[in-house]
Amino acid sequence: MYKNNYPSKLLEEAVDAISSLPGVGNRSALRLALHLLKQPQENVHHFTAAINALRDEVHYCKECMMISDGELCSVCSDKSRDHRTICVVENVRDVMSIENTGQFRGVYHVLGGIISPINGIGPSDLTVSQLVSRVKGLCADCAEGETSGIEVILALSGDVEGETTSFYIYRQLARFGVKISSLARGLGFGDDLEYADSLTLGRSLTNRQIFRPQ
Amino acid sequence: MYKNNYPSKLLEEAVDAISSLPGVGNRSALRLALHLLKQPQENVHHFTAAINALRDEVHYCKECMMISDGELCSVCSDKSRDHRTICVVENVRDVMSIENTGQFRGVYHVLGGIISPINGIGPSDLTVSQLVSRVKGLCADCAEGETSGIEVILALSGDVEGETTSFYIYRQLARFGVKISSLARGLGFGDDLEYADSLTLGRSLTNRQIFRPQ
Repeated sequence: MYKNNYPSKLLEEAVDAISSLPGVGNRSALRLALHLLKQPQENVHHFTAAINALRDEVHYCKECMMISDGELCSVCSDKSRDHRTICVVENVRDVMSIENTGQFRGVYHVLGGIISPINGIGPSDLTVSQLVSRVKGLCADCAEGETSGIEVILALSGDVEGETTSFYIYRQLARFGVKISSLARGLGFGDDLEYADSLTLGRSLTNRQIFRPQ
Repeated sequence: MYKNNYPSKLLEEAVDAISSLPGVGNRSALRLALHLLKQPQENVHHFTAAINALRDEVHYCKECMMISDGELCSVCSDKSRDHRTICVVENVRDVMSIENTGQFRGVYHVLGGIISPINGIGPSDLTVSQLVSRVKGLCADCAEGETSGIEVILALSGDVEGETTSFYIYRQLARFGVKISSLARGLGFGDDLEYADSLTLGRSLTNRQIFRPQ
């Protein structure tokens, strides 16, 4: 039988590396390694070079902490967007999801995570202080008492950790007197009442809205 | 909205590269790319170096075409194995599966695929000619009429392509007068009759064996 079940040390090392990816087990890793082995050499080099380039050369926008090719991301450098409406999200994928809706014309702030004591992630591991200085800066640019145009939207997940993070940020920003909102929670569009969980249904009732035919 | 929905060209290129892997869609590729982005730089470099090393430096055993670190794989260079029993398999994974059973003391021959006209794979794309010269060489080493100790086991899959390949190899080897066998087909151990497909059950009946209590 092969040592550690692999016929080659190189194969074993590649499988180990690939199976370190989340959601990729040993079997899938072996399948992927043997797939890569069958590809033309230049394709494999292109594959690894793209990953190295991402890790080595990617920038984070100095305003919103989003992944970016330059100093400022394409959203923050877009003059036509509303720089006084900041949407606070957990990560890069959330920004992409919201951008895909095409409904948001403001800018973002990427926290880079969510407060989670169980995973040892506290406020100092996130970009909360950068958010506070950003809001402070925006307020300083305003005339006295004219901070009403500034809005921070807390677009975090609806679980305990998301709520905790929202509350923490709320407390940090409350002193600036800016508008702080959060995403609407309720039944999804097209959702069937029958299949909604009771918490969502209950909150949807409590937070009911004036009916406005469109 | 971001160009092509990606905030960074580097991210897009990495996602494109990762989603070229079989069974990895765009969403999973994005998740993996962002995971790699969060890892320490040296881990990512180790990951890509392991893949490059596999592609650039791996050898194939000159006897059996198995992946190997040297000229001969660990099975072919093992003097204690039976070099006159050759198990013909489709690919590297099949060798690993059979090695894992611990039941086989012979050597292998990796075809590198299976005859599949629909995928444009003919006998010349496989290592059939190497197998033929290998068997020819073994026969040449034998005394006249003493080829009875040589056995070729066709361990290919039981579908049409596997059967076609087995038949093709059988015809190529028949003239040497060596023993040619194939894997036993039937119900799996522990299988329930009720859930067996009728083809397997029918063949299991036809190929029934003398009952030998162990």
